[in-house]
Amino acid sequence: MNLDRFSVNQMTVKQLPLPELVAHCVRLGIPGVGLWREPVQEYGVEAAAALVRDAGLTVTTLCRGGFFTTDGWEEANRAAIDECVTLGTDTLVLVSGGLPPGSRDLPAARARIADAIGTLAPYAGERGIRLAIEPLHPMYAADRCAVSTLDQALDIAERFPAEQVGVVVDTYHLWWDDRAPAAVARAGATGRLHSFQLADWTTPLPAGVLNGRGRLGTGAVDLPAWAALVEKAGYVGPVEVELFNEDLWARDGAEVLEETLEAFLAV
Amino acid sequence: MNLDRFSVNQMTVKQLPLPELVAHCVRLGIPGVGLWREPVQEYGVEAAAALVRDAGLTVTTLCRGGFFTTDGWEEANRAAIDECVTLGTDTLVLVSGGLPPGSRDLPAARARIADAIGTLAPYAGERGIRLAIEPLHPMYAADRCAVSTLDQALDIAERFPAEQVGVVVDTYHLWWDDRAPAAVARAGATGRLHSFQLADWTTPLPAGVLNGRGRLGTGAVDLPAWAALVEKAGYVGPVEVELFNEDLWARDGAEVLEETLEAFLAV
Repeated sequence: MNLDRFSVNQMTVKQLPLPELVAHCVRLGIPGVGLWREPVQEYGVEAAAALVRDAGLTVTTLCRGGFFTTDGWEEANRAAIDECVTLGTDTLVLVSGGLPPGSRDLPAARARIADAIGTLAPYAGERGIRLAIEPLHPMYAADRCAVSTLDQALDIAERFPAEQVGVVVDTYHLWWDDRAPAAVARAGATGRLHSFQLADWTTPLPAGVLNGRGRLGTGAVDLPAWAALVEKAGYVGPVEVELFNEDLWARDGAEVLEETLEAFLAV
Repeated sequence: MNLDRFSVNQMTVKQLPLPELVAHCVRLGIPGVGLWREPVQEYGVEAAAALVRDAGLTVTTLCRGGFFTTDGWEEANRAAIDECVTLGTDTLVLVSGGLPPGSRDLPAARARIADAIGTLAPYAGERGIRLAIEPLHPMYAADRCAVSTLDQALDIAERFPAEQVGVVVDTYHLWWDDRAPAAVARAGATGRLHSFQLADWTTPLPAGVLNGRGRLGTGAVDLPAWAALVEKAGYVGPVEVELFNEDLWARDGAEVLEETLEAFLAV
């Protein structure tokens, strides 16, 4: 894929302080970054916004809102939407949350998530922010995200206007699903494909299964096929590379960024 | 659930040598066991068959055939079918195998699995053995089983007569899937629900994600709802408890067996 589509998700090189990340992006000609709320808040939201704006970077997404099955979700998500406005991004990624403590009722958790998104959608829409529901791999259904497939995410999104609620397609979470190709087409046809993220699937998975996302080209995912699928669905936006990986975090951030860019261009 | 439905999968208490497992089942009134090929071969297939037969135990399944994407699958699976005949069970559980080495073509792996099952089905049918395709959790799609949902398993099974090829419903693998309830009904309606296995989903998952299946009642799965679902689909056969769990294997096997039985009766 081409450099002008590339966006590096901040989590991929979380060892880099924001000013260094921005400087390296400028040096390498990287046009976009996906930011995370916590490091942005640490730096200061206004200051972060000025930093990326002055560097000419596009903030492709803010990660993340969601966790609708825990207390305080509404206030936290309204704040996240406001932060999107400040940062100049139009897309808030939603990781919806798992089962509430003590519950085994997955359908109820999913209903609660849909209700919460309904509460937030107008607020987001009035501010020009799109809520992008990210289905996470089913191995996170209990404790992180009860929305496990792209079809589930679309079933929720389609209750609302496309400029308010859409979906994220992340290869790490969806690569295994034989229904995902049709769902990607569905997302494209309804104007709800709001973000495309890449990571590869490598095994064995680490304990806790959170921080073992594979560098592009090192795992089981047919990334060119996914890129073609998303393109065929009409998606022409930025492509984020988002790797949660302890090994990468332990290395020199600039080196990891350069390597990630190279792997992206090779897809 | 009632004792007369209970079957203990050998892997749950793999620390118990087969004669001890059989003796404890007799002592506790447990009517069924699901056996694994490797420990049965170590003991001797004929000898194992005599042991369980003399104890009046039903061998509910033999685990496992499959791994169709690796060399030697045909000979291994014909041998597994023959072992089913010797052991007096009518069901061979299939774990289908993941991507072949170096491949990223998941649809091709799935096609190869379906072809292999087609090769074996008549051989199994002539011997009164049912091949039971077990969809495994999507976190195993790359390296263990490319059949990730019950619908996928049924799509393959339905190409063949129901007395030759069916499916396994295992709560650990399917609990997250919102389409699973309809698929369970489909399996029942077409006479293909050949085995029902229970395990709970607990987090965090251990490294490698293989040996962290939860004891019944300790995790996220609504087991009574699953039991009701399978019953509504017309399944009246044995219910196996199959736990792969390092912590349980480190404990006294008889104690684990008693505890597992109690937890089963409480579902």
